[in-house]
Order: sequence, then structure tokens, then C-alpha cells
Amino acid sequence: MTGVRTGVRTIEWRDSTVVLIDQRVLPHDEKYVICRNWEEVAESIRTMVVRGAPAIGVAAAMGLALAARESSALGAEAFRSSLQRATKGLFATRPTAVNLRWALDEMERIWARNGLEPGETAELMERRALEICEEDLAACRAIGENGADLLAELTQGRPDLTLLTHCNAGALATAGYGTALGVVRSVFARVPGLRVFVDETRPFLQGARLTAWELVQEKIPVELITDNMAGHFLSRGEIDVIVVGADRIAANGDTANKIGTYPLSVLAREHAVPFVVAAPISTVDFSLADGSGIPIEERPAEEVTHMGGVRVAAAGVGVRNPAFDVTPAANITAIVTEKGTARPPYEDSLRPVAEGPYPSKARLTGGAC
Amino acid sequence: MTGVRTGVRTIEWRDSTVVLIDQRVLPHDEKYVICRNWEEVAESIRTMVVRGAPAIGVAAAMGLALAARESSALGAEAFRSSLQRATKGLFATRPTAVNLRWALDEMERIWARNGLEPGETAELMERRALEICEEDLAACRAIGENGADLLAELTQGRPDLTLLTHCNAGALATAGYGTALGVVRSVFARVPGLRVFVDETRPFLQGARLTAWELVQEKIPVELITDNMAGHFLSRGEIDVIVVGADRIAANGDTANKIGTYPLSVLAREHAVPFVVAAPISTVDFSLADGSGIPIEERPAEEVTHMGGVRVAAAGVGVRNPAFDVTPAANITAIVTEKGTARPPYEDSLRPVAEGPYPSKARLTGGAC
Repeated sequence: MTGVRTGVRTIEWRDSTVVLIDQRVLPHDEKYVICRNWEEVAESIRTMVVRGAPAIGVAAAMGLALAARESSALGAEAFRSSLQRATKGLFATRPTAVNLRWALDEMERIWARNGLEPGETAELMERRALEICEEDLAACRAIGENGADLLAELTQGRPDLTLLTHCNAGALATAGYGTALGVVRSVFARVPGLRVFVDETRPFLQGARLTAWELVQEKIPVELITDNMAGHFLSRGEIDVIVVGADRIAANGDTANKIGTYPLSVLAREHAVPFVVAAPISTVDFSLADGSGIPIEERPAEEVTHMGGVRVAAAGVGVRNPAFDVTPAANITAIVTEKGTARPPYEDSLRPVAEGPYPSKARLTGGAC
Repeated sequence: MTGVRTGVRTIEWRDSTVVLIDQRVLPHDEKYVICRNWEEVAESIRTMVVRGAPAIGVAAAMGLALAARESSALGAEAFRSSLQRATKGLFATRPTAVNLRWALDEMERIWARNGLEPGETAELMERRALEICEEDLAACRAIGENGADLLAELTQGRPDLTLLTHCNAGALATAGYGTALGVVRSVFARVPGLRVFVDETRPFLQGARLTAWELVQEKIPVELITDNMAGHFLSRGEIDVIVVGADRIAANGDTANKIGTYPLSVLAREHAVPFVVAAPISTVDFSLADGSGIPIEERPAEEVTHMGGVRVAAAGVGVRNPAFDVTPAANITAIVTEKGTARPPYEDSLRPVAEGPYPSKARLTGGAC
């Protein structure tokens, strides 16, 4: 399975530890962080050793499995308290991606059950965490195929295509293959003339460091640009479609994703270029009617004022660092999920997709996590 | 006059040399480059030791004055050839800002005259270069006042205001005071509740390094953001007006400015926020009917792939680095110049402004350059 992950693993359960590739230092260095308890997983999420909505969910599930293993010798009461504490601690790490809450809820379904011994529960939780990981990988593959079908339809199957993507919604953002980059990979298998504009995605540079790296590994031609250049290239007709991931989608289709996504959607609309969101259906938070309810994380100022540890910005400035923005549903051409593609109006189309059957395109491969 | 320039001088004629503050290393280091001949001035323009459209023009004029001084002992024929060569060399440095050509044309008016001795010509050219510098400073002050008048009208004189600006169109982009930042300075004198969002302006970071630095010196509150955040803040109603400079304006008002300006104009229109261009009237290139004729400079890839000399982007990527983009006139609320403010339709309003009298608001101060 390593081929699917560009030769490295975003996240792996190994000998009862959670092994994460350190995304703060890629691609310059290939380092791994080995988490032996849930606190180390939480710290890794908070500091963005691991990032990307689906990967955060997988990490949280595995972190809770570690907590269960660690507490499995306790009595039932103490075991539950311990898991409540771990759940709270993991949940507090990053507020925007819904996958975090989703994964913790999935795990809670197991440990909140009555009648299980802590030891049994820990076993089931470890199994579920690995399953969440496998399911994510299968979902990405299905998203890739559904997305490639959509793009073939939107572009009438032309032999060349220029796509723009933002941030990293790739193998490094998921258990593997990726959502937006899953679509890119699947499209590339059908459209050898594919070319991808990658905007660098300040302040964390997921585009320049992570997406660019993944695509170079796949030998997909990359044009790296700064975040302020997409308008120029759209106005010159150089970009045919934009595909992005998502951290949380409201019931009406409003989508929270990495800061900078919203401006791209406005520019796409301005130039009649399709703007596609690719994400697992679990990204949809049906409890939110629209995007105004999505919490937008503000991260440390240093991410903006410094680069590579060196201060670049003038001293004495205030700084704002919202890590996400909300794209209104009106700017979104389609939402591609593993269970199918939803079109506007999303308040009508998303629920049927969510309640639909698990797709035949998604095959759990086993042993991949 | 140093107070007007935030205590440093962008460009100064001193003992027959051109002294430039090195804008590649601000604000971290305050270094100066002393140019003793026109080739050194050209190199400084090319490598962005000095940048900003008006400053480039002033530098070119002074560079040519150096060439004249250096060749003043030659015969008339050889003198002219020498100046032709210097003109060509200076003109080739950067293609987009019209101020470069304008300044070289102003100087050519002198040396192309018949009947002057090389020595006399060199004297006149030195005087004209200093005058161009002084005029630019006066123009900036007038632009500042005209811009502040306009903003008072647009915002009905409210006591607080949040303005966004892009790149650096400040003292560092001009002979002093600045165009867009001239407007900011003049507004701040009237509106103490002014707050300025500064986007960092990758790849060269003129916003984070230069604009932020200038405003902190003036004690104007700054909120530094990355280039992909403006949409988020506009959508939340946090920005009241956008003011930018310009490198070249076509006869119909289409405006070339630092890459990233165009997207801001689209977002401004999306949120019904005024979008104002501030520039000397010499920035208008009446020989161009519209923006499609404005040359867009592509700069070295390393500016995108590296930060502070260290590579951040994945290896093996293609890179695009257009340094400017074109904002359609339809997105521009007003163009503020030293001779007055033009409103749409610009193909009708710009020429009367250009042909109008030199404004009483602009006072040459003398000895400032």
C-alpha cells in the first residue's frame, strides 16, 4: 500500500504507538514522531505535526485507542473517566475540522457501551481506529473516481486539463491517496495531459511543501505560485477547474476549508470556472444550517511573522491568523464524496448522498494502516 | 524632511553618488547601497534594492545623471552615445512600471537638445533628476490630501476606519511620503481611529517588511495578514476601503499593480467596498488603450521557492512568478492623482486631469532629495 501514499505514511499504528510523519518539516526533512500516549497525539495535532481534516480524525481515533490501552487495567469507572479526559483533551486541539469530533464520537460509541470489560473495549477501540483509517483510504479512492467522473463530464473529456488546488488535501491530509489530490491522481490516470497549479498556501505552506511534493512524486506537472496569483492566471484563461478539500461542510453546502479558499471561489465564479469541493461525506455537519456556525480557528501570530524560524515581518505589528474561511454554497459547482456527488441546492442533495449505500467503488484493502 | 520619510531615505543624491536603502533586507537590516555609476543603479533596480514605481523613476533619472557626469569630458558625439547606452541599459531593467520610461524621456529631453556642451548638459541633467525627486515628493503629499478628501466623502467622515493596502506604495516606493501610504498618512492625520490591514505580499514581502515597518514608525495600528486572508475579513465586514498604488495605468483606467491587486479588486466589488488607486498622473500611459498592452514582468523562480535564502518548496516543481497583474477599470472606484481625482469612465476623465494645472496642494520643498 505504500505506493498509494507516495512512499511515506502520513499515519501508522505500529506496536501500539502512533507514528506520524512530521509535516512541519517536510519536504526538507523526513522525520517521524512516535506517540506513545494520547497526550503526545494531541500535541501533534495542535502543533500540526499531523494536519488535514481526515488525518486529524484518524489520529484522534488512534490517540483514543492508545488511551484505552493505557487505562485498560483500571476498573470500569476509572477507565471511562480516563477516556472522557482523553476525549476532551483531543477535542480541544483544533476546533474547525468536523472529522475530529466525528472520530471521537465513533470511538465513544464503543467505550460508552455497557457491559464490556476495559480490556475488551481497548481491543475493540484499536480495531475501530484501524478501521477508520482503512475506511478513509477507501473513501479517498472512491472520491478520486467520483471526482474524475465529474471532471470528465465538466470538461467533455478533453485530453489536457489545467487544475488549481489549494493547501494539501492529499495523502498527507488523509490516511492516504487524498481527497482533492485523490481526484487529481484519478484524473491523471485518465488525462495524461493534466497540469496542476499549486498555490503555496501561507502561512504554513502546505501547498509549496506538501502538495507540490506529493505531485512531483507522482510525476504530475506542477506550476507553483504564490496565493495572490490565481486571479491573474484565471483572467488569462489558464485554469480550467479548481478542486479543494474541506474541513467542515454545513447542511446547506457552505464549506469551511483552509484560509484562501473563499477568494478562489469568488475568482472562479468571476471567470466561469468550475469550483469543486472533494471530501468524505462525514465532513458534512448536518447540525449546522449554514457556514456562520462553523468555528474559525485563529492560530499563533508567529506563523505569519516568521518563516523558517526567522522573523520577516516588521516588529510592532498586530497580526491576524484565521486558519480557515467559509465558501458560500452558491460558489460551489459540486461536492464530491465517496458516496456520490452532490449538486446544488445542497440542502436537498447532501442528505440523500449521506444516507445512500456505501459505494461499490470503495474497497477496504485491509492492512494498510 | 527626514520625518516625512520615516527617518530613512529611500533614495538620495549625495556627492555625485546615488545612495539607496537596500529594500531586500529591510526591516531586519538597515543597509545602504552606494551607486557610483549608472550600471550600479541599473543593477539595483533589477535586483530590487530599490523598487516601487515612482522610486524606480527617480533612480533611473539619477542614474542617467551619473552617466552624464561620467561622460561629460567626452566629445558631443561620444557623450550622446554614452547616454543612449545608459538609457537602454536602465530601460531594460524592469518592464512594467511606466515611471521608468517617463523619467528617461524627461532626461532625454535635455541631452537630446542641440547646442549644449556635455558639461552643461550634465549639470542640467543633475538638476532635473533632483527636481524629479522633489516633484515626486510633492506629488505624494498632494495625492495624500486628495485621497484623504475622497475617503472622507466615501465614508462620510466617520471617526474610525479600517483600510487595506497591498504591497508597499509608501515612502520606500517613492521619493518620500508615498502614494497609497501617502493617503494613509493624510487620512490618519484626520482620522485618529484609522487601522490598516497590510497583506504581506509574497513573494518579496513588501507588505510584511516595508509597509508594516513604515506604518509602525508612524504609530498607525497595523494588522498584518497573509495574502489569502483579505476575502475572509471583507466577508466579515471588517474592511471599509482598499487603497493601492499603481505601476502603469492604461488610458481606460485598467491598472497594473503588484500581483495580487486584481483579486483584491474582485473581492472588494463582491462586498461593495470602495477600491481606490493612488498614483502620480505620470503613471497613466495614454499610448495604451487598455490593460492588455501592459507588459507583465516574470521574475526569477527562486523568489517563490525560497525564503530568506532557504528553499521551502518541494524540488522538481515548475514555478510561475508574474510580478504584476491588471485590474480592470470596472473594479476601480476612483484614481487619485496629485492633479485631482478621476472617476469612471476613465477614458473620459483621465486626460482632463492630466492636462489640468499643477495643483496648489503640491509645494516643492527643495533640498529634500
